[in-house]
Amino acid sequence: MTMPTIRLMPKAEARAIRHGFPWVYSNELVTDRRTKALAPGALAVLEDSARTPMGVVAVNPQSRIIARMLDRDPEAVIDRDWLAARLRAALAHREALYDAPFYRLVHAEADGLPGVVIDRFGDAAVIQPNAAWAEVLLDDLAAALADVTGVSTIVKNGSGRARGLEGLPEETLVMTGALDGPVPVAMNGATYMADLTGGQKTGLFFDQRDNHAFVQRLVQGRRVLDVFSHVGGFSLAALAGDASQALAVDSSAPALELAGQGAAAMGAGDRFATRKGDAFDVMTALAEEGERFDVVVCDPPAFAPNRQALEAGLRAYERVARLAAPLVAEGGYLGLCSCSHAADLTKFRNASARGIGRGGRRGQIIWTGFAGPDHPQLPQLAESGYLKSLVFRLSE
Amino acid sequence: MTMPTIRLMPKAEARAIRHGFPWVYSNELVTDRRTKALAPGALAVLEDSARTPMGVVAVNPQSRIIARMLDRDPEAVIDRDWLAARLRAALAHREALYDAPFYRLVHAEADGLPGVVIDRFGDAAVIQPNAAWAEVLLDDLAAALADVTGVSTIVKNGSGRARGLEGLPEETLVMTGALDGPVPVAMNGATYMADLTGGQKTGLFFDQRDNHAFVQRLVQGRRVLDVFSHVGGFSLAALAGDASQALAVDSSAPALELAGQGAAAMGAGDRFATRKGDAFDVMTALAEEGERFDVVVCDPPAFAPNRQALEAGLRAYERVARLAAPLVAEGGYLGLCSCSHAADLTKFRNASARGIGRGGRRGQIIWTGFAGPDHPQLPQLAESGYLKSLVFRLSE
Repeated sequence: MTMPTIRLMPKAEARAIRHGFPWVYSNELVTDRRTKALAPGALAVLEDSARTPMGVVAVNPQSRIIARMLDRDPEAVIDRDWLAARLRAALAHREALYDAPFYRLVHAEADGLPGVVIDRFGDAAVIQPNAAWAEVLLDDLAAALADVTGVSTIVKNGSGRARGLEGLPEETLVMTGALDGPVPVAMNGATYMADLTGGQKTGLFFDQRDNHAFVQRLVQGRRVLDVFSHVGGFSLAALAGDASQALAVDSSAPALELAGQGAAAMGAGDRFATRKGDAFDVMTALAEEGERFDVVVCDPPAFAPNRQALEAGLRAYERVARLAAPLVAEGGYLGLCSCSHAADLTKFRNASARGIGRGGRRGQIIWTGFAGPDHPQLPQLAESGYLKSLVFRLSE
Repeated sequence: MTMPTIRLMPKAEARAIRHGFPWVYSNELVTDRRTKALAPGALAVLEDSARTPMGVVAVNPQSRIIARMLDRDPEAVIDRDWLAARLRAALAHREALYDAPFYRLVHAEADGLPGVVIDRFGDAAVIQPNAAWAEVLLDDLAAALADVTGVSTIVKNGSGRARGLEGLPEETLVMTGALDGPVPVAMNGATYMADLTGGQKTGLFFDQRDNHAFVQRLVQGRRVLDVFSHVGGFSLAALAGDASQALAVDSSAPALELAGQGAAAMGAGDRFATRKGDAFDVMTALAEEGERFDVVVCDPPAFAPNRQALEAGLRAYERVARLAAPLVAEGGYLGLCSCSHAADLTKFRNASARGIGRGGRRGQIIWTGFAGPDHPQLPQLAESGYLKSLVFRLSE
């Protein structure tokens, strides 16, 4: 079976691709009728404009990213064995890092599986096939995953923005095995309850683990406020770090319910409280009540998911900082997070510092953290590293 | 006693200073004869161009940074009690972070003591008075330090570039107490030997602690190469993380001797080896010998200490990466560090990725680390955060 061939335009960035950039944009490709007719997810050999083969790519004529590099060997056969080899390399890295099998196993391009995200929860795994080729090869991918890792339950999570850009429909289902309620996940000494089919993303955010761990170092015997808590990311880590009290604020009742179950599973239910509501409203109310906490962390959803939303997003981050700063006790700590691609570290830091100033406080930065090492990044895409986590020490 | 008054020029950045920027540059100040005649280190009240008092500053007419903000209260009295209050705030932060009294206690501007660096080694402390005002008040500072922390030995370390810019002479001496050889320092489970009077900077680099800890997570049962090792920063941390072997490379025989003493103190002397020589030469030789290591870390001196040295510095960082990459086993890890102010994160990351590519490898970034939380930063100066530490996972 010969693969079709697609070709870069003469002006295209062949050099960047040779140096590891993993994508071809639609305006860089000779899109003749034959290329346009390729099915989303079709495999092809990419050639440069001089017709030298560059590797095997996955094509999606419906996406702005029209081709994604799968293998720089133009002879590579993309089958279950090939998928298994990529999974084994990804697994070796995680097994070097973690004692227990709870982590992001595959982080897309940087793990050599473009558009594919796989989170592992012990004997279960959640696949996000966010590129058309992975949707096509999903059964092989799931089989290779079971084979390499031994997981018995595999969930397909087909929600989220990325699939829309690829023209893929939403679909979440259990492919193999069965789930009996939320899965308990041990992380930083805390117990999180992850809902693998009903929750946000893949049920739990592994990416904040190192930032949770940093905040955990600051909380012993202290009162902690966790705003935009989701299932209790920072608050349960704080309880595991012997915080005297943790208050989780979120607008989602199911997320707070899971957080409460986690706290109870840790035997820390008596030190844990929740407050359901809009985070901005709750912070305003807490200030009116004269509340102060030794440590406050705000981990909001992406306010600036794309360039168009950047200015409004930065204003929202500034507002979070402005409302949170007055809630921090003198000499206490304020953690501020952004998972917005469009807001780079400098812009986010400046918005945060401005908000702290407008909240009447001064801050020194003591921590700048990113997604953990189970979320590797290609250096070529590192500028857009989405997760930024800053911790400030505040004075009056 | 009334303090002299100095005044900003109308065009000066009064707003930036009001928002927390800690410095006044010489071209921003009305430098009349009276101001020029102030003794280096004199205290003064800073006024904006409308003669509104902004705070108490330390003046040095010989420095490009002609004034440093000490206290935004124009009535503040800068005496031993004032110094003690600043030290107590700094100490409270470190005591929240660390179980044992080994850390950077004062990190200059961000700890409210501009130009002053104090590292603590248990019962001993090393002061770097890198601004003229601290040289003038050094006896009060040392007395307050002994009072607040209880340290019995205080060293003045008056070496380094910063003092030259302030017109201060080199001078290193024991001010109080006595030292009997190197001080053992426990960090990340390793034992480092710190020479508080004869070594580089203040005898040990506390700033890499979190980056050491990250690399330590990758080394169990693995062979580690520590290039530009100084007293064994990464290699002793690796031994404490159960590396099978660690090889430290440095051009300084005394530094390697201290590293060896540390390894011996840890009972890990049999897993530790050193190689004295120019790091570039040794890496070239190791490649010729066909050596490969599971983990390689390069922590060179500042190749780009200032803007003029930036281009040459980036080429040197690229060269380090190019020579180090071939020494890393397939699927292994490469740590690359820069302590250059002038090379920002993006530039350093790009130089490193380029070097890895020219060394015939591909890398994914799994860690981006900075100086630890005992090195706080003012947000206004954070862009120039000097220490960057990247860890790449390498494939062929």
